[in-house]
Amino acid sequence: MEVQGVMAVDLYALVNSQEKEEKAYLEELLKDNVYIQGWVRTNRDNGSIGFIALNDGTCFKNVQLVYDNSIPNHDVLSHVNTGAALNVVGRLVLTPQAKQPFEIRVVDFEVEGDVASDYPLQKKAHSLEFLRDIAHLRPRANTFNAVFRMRNAMAMAIHEYFQQNGFMYVHTPLITGNDAEGAGSTFNVTTNDKDPNSFFGKPVSLTVSGQLHVEAFALAFRDVYTFGPTFRAEHSNTVRHASEFWMIEPELAFADLNDDMDCIEGCIKHCINVALHECPDEMDFFNNFIDKGLKERLHAVLHSEFKRMTYTEAIEELQKAVKNGHKFENSDIKWGMDLQSEHERYITEQVIKGPVFLIDYPKEIKAFYMRLNEDGKTVAACDLLVPHVGELVGGSQREERYDVLKEKMEKAGCLKGLEWYLDLRKYGGCKHAGFGIGFDRLLMYVTGINNIRDVQPFPRTSDPIKY
Amino acid sequence: MEVQGVMAVDLYALVNSQEKEEKAYLEELLKDNVYIQGWVRTNRDNGSIGFIALNDGTCFKNVQLVYDNSIPNHDVLSHVNTGAALNVVGRLVLTPQAKQPFEIRVVDFEVEGDVASDYPLQKKAHSLEFLRDIAHLRPRANTFNAVFRMRNAMAMAIHEYFQQNGFMYVHTPLITGNDAEGAGSTFNVTTNDKDPNSFFGKPVSLTVSGQLHVEAFALAFRDVYTFGPTFRAEHSNTVRHASEFWMIEPELAFADLNDDMDCIEGCIKHCINVALHECPDEMDFFNNFIDKGLKERLHAVLHSEFKRMTYTEAIEELQKAVKNGHKFENSDIKWGMDLQSEHERYITEQVIKGPVFLIDYPKEIKAFYMRLNEDGKTVAACDLLVPHVGELVGGSQREERYDVLKEKMEKAGCLKGLEWYLDLRKYGGCKHAGFGIGFDRLLMYVTGINNIRDVQPFPRTSDPIKY
Repeated sequence: MEVQGVMAVDLYALVNSQEKEEKAYLEELLKDNVYIQGWVRTNRDNGSIGFIALNDGTCFKNVQLVYDNSIPNHDVLSHVNTGAALNVVGRLVLTPQAKQPFEIRVVDFEVEGDVASDYPLQKKAHSLEFLRDIAHLRPRANTFNAVFRMRNAMAMAIHEYFQQNGFMYVHTPLITGNDAEGAGSTFNVTTNDKDPNSFFGKPVSLTVSGQLHVEAFALAFRDVYTFGPTFRAEHSNTVRHASEFWMIEPELAFADLNDDMDCIEGCIKHCINVALHECPDEMDFFNNFIDKGLKERLHAVLHSEFKRMTYTEAIEELQKAVKNGHKFENSDIKWGMDLQSEHERYITEQVIKGPVFLIDYPKEIKAFYMRLNEDGKTVAACDLLVPHVGELVGGSQREERYDVLKEKMEKAGCLKGLEWYLDLRKYGGCKHAGFGIGFDRLLMYVTGINNIRDVQPFPRTSDPIKY
Repeated sequence: MEVQGVMAVDLYALVNSQEKEEKAYLEELLKDNVYIQGWVRTNRDNGSIGFIALNDGTCFKNVQLVYDNSIPNHDVLSHVNTGAALNVVGRLVLTPQAKQPFEIRVVDFEVEGDVASDYPLQKKAHSLEFLRDIAHLRPRANTFNAVFRMRNAMAMAIHEYFQQNGFMYVHTPLITGNDAEGAGSTFNVTTNDKDPNSFFGKPVSLTVSGQLHVEAFALAFRDVYTFGPTFRAEHSNTVRHASEFWMIEPELAFADLNDDMDCIEGCIKHCINVALHECPDEMDFFNNFIDKGLKERLHAVLHSEFKRMTYTEAIEELQKAVKNGHKFENSDIKWGMDLQSEHERYITEQVIKGPVFLIDYPKEIKAFYMRLNEDGKTVAACDLLVPHVGELVGGSQREERYDVLKEKMEKAGCLKGLEWYLDLRKYGGCKHAGFGIGFDRLLMYVTGINNIRDVQPFPRTSDPIKY
């Protein structure tokens, strides 16, 4: 007898398929025994009939196994605990009247890997805090099953969006001798040599951004993007800060701030679209158990036009709000100030009631590489603000004028060591723009999870490292 | 007049397309002026007619611009230098009799970004060594144009292969408190705090492998893979060693060494297939200018079955070779020795004449997590050897038996801090296997480039860091 190995993801697809070939294959499977492997989520047995929810790792949903006391070693199966790995041979049976569209009636089985009695993931619900402490086991819990599937789907959505739009993926270096945002909060990279400069010839650190490096590639390949880890050594013990996180940094040549914002809007909408339409089980889970308004909110963003508003207009709106009695933690609203999360959320949630790009920020509060506007006071920067979260993406048109950039770099004291970056304006430079998306925060946004520790496989924050 | 913006990659696709819609679109383009932006590669003008090879970054090939002295500012265009960025309006004309299938006859232009006269990338050919010193400009040279396009294509080929086969992408951490291969050659990560343990609660380093972490995910999601940067602090000044490089580490649950090798073979063949069929211009370039035998060699691998041979058989073959007069640098061939590159290449090039997996290595020369074979002397490891390169991929079935693994970890002195890894064998463990592919070396293999410094955007080796 030949037994066909099957996986849950394929079975769910097959029973829903209208395609001729797939229907024929399903007919074949129904005629004979199938073979499935996975992990027990629950096992209940009333003596004459038992039910196991088996998750085989290939999709969010479990497969229902049914067994009765006629099978060999019935006693072993009826006592198999949550967490055990099973190899099962059984009959696939369609159950269109039941909650699940099919079940597998066990003919024979083998315990591939038993589970010790101190297994911390018992049936009952666990807090996210408790699960954070068992990061090696939590992928088996429903929440993290859904989160890490979504992480995979979003990573692929990012590549898909940029590849389909002709962007080239670039691996910018992580160990670096320079720093995009100004020194301070970087991790040092050292060896055990006595001389700290001996390995690379100078002190080096972990990158905070691949932008400067990727600009060199935009000026050869037009549209490019990085997607890789970046680091911050800040002791920020918040739910939104991590020491290590993935970032997407696209860079568009022959592009201005408007092109930049069009690209951001397209990218975010593509990711939301993939989440809603390619991960329906995961989204239902998040919507039911993590954040009740999630799907409605994402649908609204998907179908809204992202508005654009200047920083100066935003300041006026905030001042108006204060005048009308709105209380911010910081209600001293002045042009030139850095907006806090409360201000950003007020603009997107109360004023615009939807996603909005704030543009043209005061030059003093933004980075040296951003293009100086004609007014001499503001730069061509944009921050995308979305309801519920605040800032989701930051971007800017880059200063392409050699003399202007040189002066800004000298003023910022960062020209030394970055002469090559200035060079890019001397040798066939062009108008260009780019942006950065914190991938982990994007994931928080589409899942409704509100702690960055719960979207990273093994979180790296200012917490002690256990794994 | 509406002028349609065009890109080289689309024009080359359009003129070769047989699709009705695309042919119609091309007809439209031919009726009116088009707009293209890019960088001058060469410019020659005989006074009455001039030719510019323009590369717009969207594909390997240049676009031919033709201009005569009737255009406005003819003098400016005829003196535009290699490297300058141009905005061009012109007529698209098909030239089926010429070397290139179309050209653009310049109607008007603008110099978007001029180029200083000390531009280091003049028309003449430059050595790879010279170009390495201008890493910010070398993406504009033909070799690196081809290399970094291929790097993008191979990165996508990797994702494609694993996603299509149901693997889930996992971001394992880069900052780590442990170490897969034994201590020594890692970079330390520190902050400027006085106490080196203050940030993460213990000394941490940059990861040498995501394998241990990703195993935890395989035991929840079945088939998973990492694809991210890894690090080695070795002072190995060779053409094949880098301090920072990208690695692919798949892990397969419910899988043994044979499943592992099937997956490796499928993955490598998929990558070669993508290189040969989706990057024909780049492959022609490599085959003509970098490595004459490249395409033939890759075609041969694509169509050959990967053989399998035990380490013990390989030792016998090497001993036979020595007996027959073959000279190795190390000709003292003994069971238990670690094979050198010369030995590996002899096996794959002279004995097998094709790709071969060596399996079942002595346990003493392999890592603690590899599964002990029934003979008690060897472990279920495999190295894929390929002609011209030697080892390309290394993998193994993992030790899934709790007691055996515990003993091996105690012996290796690595149990402390890795109790969680041992835990995975206690809570629903299963037979599993995985492998690692050095992405940069894979790229060297498919391009024929023989120095790892020439396949990384900004190389990180034991050389001083300039960028």
